[in-house]
Amino acid sequence: MSTDPRHAPLFEPITVGPKTFRNRFYVAPHCSGLGVEYPGAQAYLRGMRAEGGWAAVNTEYCAVDAESDDAPWVQARLIDRRDEANLSLMVDRVHEFGALAGVQLVYMGPDHTGFVTRLPAGGPSQMTSAMSGHSCYALDKNDIRRIQRSYVDAAIRARDLGFDLVQVAAREGFSLPLQFLWRYWNHRTDEYGGSIENRTRFWRETIEQVREAVGTDCAIVAGLCLDQFSDDSEQAFKVADDGVAVVELLDGLVDLWDMQVGHLEDDVSSSRFFEPFWQRSYIEQVRPYATKPIAAVGRFTDPELMARAVKDGVIDIIGAARPAIADPFIPTKIREGRADDIRECIGCNICVSRFNNGGGRIVCTQNATVGEEYRRGWHPERFNPSERAEDAILIVGAGPAGMECARVLGERGFANVHLVERETGIGGHVNWVSQLPGLRTWRRLVEYREAQLAKLNNVTVLTGTSMGVDDVLEYGAQTVVVATGADWDGSGTSPETHAPLRGAAEHPELVFTPEDLMVRACEVPGDSVLVYDCDGYFMGSSIAEKLAMDGKQVTLVSPADQIGSYLFFTDEGGHAMHALLELGVTLVPSHVVTSVRPGMITGHHSYHPGREMSWSADSIVLVTQRRSRNDLYERLTADPEALRAHDVERVLRIGDCVEPRVIAESVFDGHRLAREIDSPNPAEPLPFIREQRILGWHEEDYDGELRGLIPLTPVSRPRPEVAPR
Amino acid sequence: MSTDPRHAPLFEPITVGPKTFRNRFYVAPHCSGLGVEYPGAQAYLRGMRAEGGWAAVNTEYCAVDAESDDAPWVQARLIDRRDEANLSLMVDRVHEFGALAGVQLVYMGPDHTGFVTRLPAGGPSQMTSAMSGHSCYALDKNDIRRIQRSYVDAAIRARDLGFDLVQVAAREGFSLPLQFLWRYWNHRTDEYGGSIENRTRFWRETIEQVREAVGTDCAIVAGLCLDQFSDDSEQAFKVADDGVAVVELLDGLVDLWDMQVGHLEDDVSSSRFFEPFWQRSYIEQVRPYATKPIAAVGRFTDPELMARAVKDGVIDIIGAARPAIADPFIPTKIREGRADDIRECIGCNICVSRFNNGGGRIVCTQNATVGEEYRRGWHPERFNPSERAEDAILIVGAGPAGMECARVLGERGFANVHLVERETGIGGHVNWVSQLPGLRTWRRLVEYREAQLAKLNNVTVLTGTSMGVDDVLEYGAQTVVVATGADWDGSGTSPETHAPLRGAAEHPELVFTPEDLMVRACEVPGDSVLVYDCDGYFMGSSIAEKLAMDGKQVTLVSPADQIGSYLFFTDEGGHAMHALLELGVTLVPSHVVTSVRPGMITGHHSYHPGREMSWSADSIVLVTQRRSRNDLYERLTADPEALRAHDVERVLRIGDCVEPRVIAESVFDGHRLAREIDSPNPAEPLPFIREQRILGWHEEDYDGELRGLIPLTPVSRPRPEVAPR
Repeated sequence: MSTDPRHAPLFEPITVGPKTFRNRFYVAPHCSGLGVEYPGAQAYLRGMRAEGGWAAVNTEYCAVDAESDDAPWVQARLIDRRDEANLSLMVDRVHEFGALAGVQLVYMGPDHTGFVTRLPAGGPSQMTSAMSGHSCYALDKNDIRRIQRSYVDAAIRARDLGFDLVQVAAREGFSLPLQFLWRYWNHRTDEYGGSIENRTRFWRETIEQVREAVGTDCAIVAGLCLDQFSDDSEQAFKVADDGVAVVELLDGLVDLWDMQVGHLEDDVSSSRFFEPFWQRSYIEQVRPYATKPIAAVGRFTDPELMARAVKDGVIDIIGAARPAIADPFIPTKIREGRADDIRECIGCNICVSRFNNGGGRIVCTQNATVGEEYRRGWHPERFNPSERAEDAILIVGAGPAGMECARVLGERGFANVHLVERETGIGGHVNWVSQLPGLRTWRRLVEYREAQLAKLNNVTVLTGTSMGVDDVLEYGAQTVVVATGADWDGSGTSPETHAPLRGAAEHPELVFTPEDLMVRACEVPGDSVLVYDCDGYFMGSSIAEKLAMDGKQVTLVSPADQIGSYLFFTDEGGHAMHALLELGVTLVPSHVVTSVRPGMITGHHSYHPGREMSWSADSIVLVTQRRSRNDLYERLTADPEALRAHDVERVLRIGDCVEPRVIAESVFDGHRLAREIDSPNPAEPLPFIREQRILGWHEEDYDGELRGLIPLTPVSRPRPEVAPR
Repeated sequence: MSTDPRHAPLFEPITVGPKTFRNRFYVAPHCSGLGVEYPGAQAYLRGMRAEGGWAAVNTEYCAVDAESDDAPWVQARLIDRRDEANLSLMVDRVHEFGALAGVQLVYMGPDHTGFVTRLPAGGPSQMTSAMSGHSCYALDKNDIRRIQRSYVDAAIRARDLGFDLVQVAAREGFSLPLQFLWRYWNHRTDEYGGSIENRTRFWRETIEQVREAVGTDCAIVAGLCLDQFSDDSEQAFKVADDGVAVVELLDGLVDLWDMQVGHLEDDVSSSRFFEPFWQRSYIEQVRPYATKPIAAVGRFTDPELMARAVKDGVIDIIGAARPAIADPFIPTKIREGRADDIRECIGCNICVSRFNNGGGRIVCTQNATVGEEYRRGWHPERFNPSERAEDAILIVGAGPAGMECARVLGERGFANVHLVERETGIGGHVNWVSQLPGLRTWRRLVEYREAQLAKLNNVTVLTGTSMGVDDVLEYGAQTVVVATGADWDGSGTSPETHAPLRGAAEHPELVFTPEDLMVRACEVPGDSVLVYDCDGYFMGSSIAEKLAMDGKQVTLVSPADQIGSYLFFTDEGGHAMHALLELGVTLVPSHVVTSVRPGMITGHHSYHPGREMSWSADSIVLVTQRRSRNDLYERLTADPEALRAHDVERVLRIGDCVEPRVIAESVFDGHRLAREIDSPNPAEPLPFIREQRILGWHEEDYDGELRGLIPLTPVSRPRPEVAPR
């Protein structure tokens, strides 16, 4: 197929300083949990986007100086030859597929932790960071020159490695130029503080010095947070005055603008609270002042929206982080007229949650291969054929794990894959979860798989078909995969108590689960309802939000100090709490519910059983924990004789019916099993490359047993030793 | 000197199964953030205790199976040859100094995260962990055999590496045997659930199998949590029945008991809330039933307390984690009759806080060298002499950083070190901080350094001496180190607003800082006081506690969702909140204070400015942020001419006067500068070994520039390849 003419503007090359983008697709800098610590994974994660057709691919935030230490959060870093060696793999891999490689240089200032280096860091003024809880020293002029020198040194290292784009970031959360720009951080009275010209000075000088050093070899990218967003204080940095002024002041110095709006939790705008390209109206305000190309993210997955943004001249280059995580092949698919094959980001932000939770590796609800490209050798669009492709495989349950397992088995060419679902449609609990307020985009998880399964002639999908033990035995499949999901527990058994809630069994008319509301459409009696959230992710706040929108008086109680604490890892927590408060929901953290009776729910403070509390609610919704629906698996595996008698060679299980977990992990589990279903023991994953240093080992000692399994072995070259910094 | 006869029992050898302890000192398993990821640091951290005279030294929790994945928290692990290679360094290093090496085998069950392996994990019953937020699958009989086989495989690997002690842990927070023991976790109805005999079955079988595999080569250690503590439910595991029963059932099978009481936050009992060896009364209850030696921790730093515990027969072996972190040479110092040289643990728990906060590396308030033994080549008791030892060095300010800097310079043999302090005693803010409720033990930080400085004839300590710029210039020192500390900000400027609190300047009579209360002994007017905690560590809750004990009506407000959130990293949060509630303090998290006027303080919800709140308090104590006292440094460095004229070659600064930070980091900063004050640029730390994998590098490519600086280069040997699991 060929490119839809409406999308053609996205494939016009564009000049960015000394470089040319082959098209308008740009993977913005984003965290991965890989940085310079997992160089193979880093190279193959980023390289996959180059292979998928993007014009330019960036690192995550890359420290220019040892003072910019954000451990345990994993950064890229360019301060010594070790960093050079590890990042060189990424550059080579990105170049191999014809894309440009970009690096985002940062110095974190007070947002640093110093947990590895144990160094202090400097800021415009001595202020404590609400993000890190750390303070800083106020930079004097010598310090400013020193840090600028670090930027230049890092830029030179980047240039020497072959990076094409060098971004000097003034973006929220981790960059000194922004801290100089914002009055919130910058209380200086010298030539680096006060007027917008003065507050721009540090960034301007740094860009000038970087340009002087590498500007003929690399394009210089200005990463700018245009607006402090949702901050109405007089001191706030706002697009209409400050943003415009900065663009006017620096447009002549830069080759590309990479625009951001708001704080990190706005930039990583989840679909629950933000529409795609909500940033448009902000960028429009500075567009007239920027003669250089503008790139910006906007959770772009729809080629129409992308093409319109470019055709309207708001931006020139489509930035993406999450969409590229969910589908590294977006540009190729659009170019080939296969936009309907795009695995669209659902905007759930699980990708960033592991990173936020201690620096962990990237994962994705839609794309199980992300972060696995190197260590497991997985490619999102290519699948290993099987020597056992004639085996008949029955998958029972078409939720996230089952759908993905069937899809991947189909892609691998298995000739007889049957996916059987008792409900009338596939999708499992995503079907009702996506009906919760703000979560409709999550349905893309189902829609993508429905469309892909429809294209796979070797996969049969049967809906509306319940499968008992006998049905399975008689189905004729050698391999049975059980993917029957999980239910919310209605007894009130919670992670805290591990015991049923007193009164719940005696008063079933007062007690509801999320499925009672969303699947069974039960009417919750009375005006007031208490939602008890021991789960800590989205379900508690979503149910509370829904009930409040339905007109209930809602009290949301949680034993945790932070309600929906995992939402803060997905950068949704603040928005969720705001939404609940706006709806009039009463938030009660740090309280355990201990009993239920008509009209009265009692409990106490989490840290003091003597501090009792009661709520006069008419009913309670229990969001306490989930239980696997594991009966079918247990009954099948309890009778090996019957299995043998019916030529069932193996029974495997995946997803929530093993252990209830986030959707991304269920999809991963289904994907993993499908990739490895013909391995000697498919229940146990094949080993993966850990990229761990083993003191004293030689290169050939590493990963020996994995080399036969995983074809990928990038090798970096030690570079000439330079003086340590 | 020779051993005090009262302490002699601590040096009697004791037989533990097939092994002999050379004395009664045992480093209990404890986290370090090193595990198998930083093998050199691991080997040298643990090896330092062997050198310091301990009889046995353990790893941290060591996973026996890939399902026991706790990332991002860093574990040891024994599942493949990579793990073997990295842990072998530790064994060799511990043996080099004549100690026994121990490993604590664990399978985490539902406490796992699976963030690296992406695997589910099994538990006795399907329950969600309040600690990890993860669920598990319920282990069937085959699963039980498989996990037990993992224990055995790991024990064999451990034995083959040379480990002397193999602990099969049933301790809180991370071990399947405990989950089988506790009714809280174990709801099974088969032979592994119900009666205490049944609940002990999994552990018994596992110990039997491990003993069968390695029991003639290794001593088998049973790590047992004796009592669920502070849990009064009927299902709770209590020492008097369950604890006694388990000891009776298993005593014949084990070689050593390693006893624990309570949950992790009780086991890591901070000095703020627990006395040393508070566990005694629990252990006394099982003592009659244990014929095998008992080891237990109790934050033992006092040889009298240790000797009494052994002489009384309560325990046989002194377990220690934190005391060994603060001073790895405790046994040697007691043996040599130098108990007054012990650098006693202050029980602040900062050591575990970095680990709890995303798996970070160990640090210590008392011992700046911990975790730095390998990567910086630091030894806690040995110091490199200097070629510039005749340089005169003036340190201004005898807080944590200044005291430590002077001490280390003295140990290094600098001939002319002057430590000058304006107050009448040394210690800086620790002098008043240690007067806060429960923090008296923190004074050990000062007492140790007072005693050590008194022994160093080359260090002159001058107290009651204020130093202005001219005083410094005319002092006659070539090197000046400014260590003038920090003050609490009285303006209400906070990490959230970065701006003064409205009304604070207008109503100084209502507004207090911690120093106003503790140093200037100001009377807080009225009955009710609001403490505004934007700091998030101990100060807010400590001030609130003190004021409540003084009879005030206290409201503790924090913009964070978790008041004193860093206290949860030091495992003190729950205890602190309980204490505050017990005192009647009103806890108000998630609220920003926006203005102060007589009788009325106003604010709003952190996530919604429209949700306003007011408190009718008579005064406010601001625990918002600290500001460096940096005047002296700034004025000195602003006038290079004057420095030259007075032959001052360099002015350096350390500790809070650079950037306010936790005490451990100030002590580190003073220590670091003293170690490196004769380096070419002492303001900038020398590089350290990162132990990072560089793909494609050969052993000789690593750490090249560091080899001249750091004398330590352990080398592991690749072992024969075995089939991957």
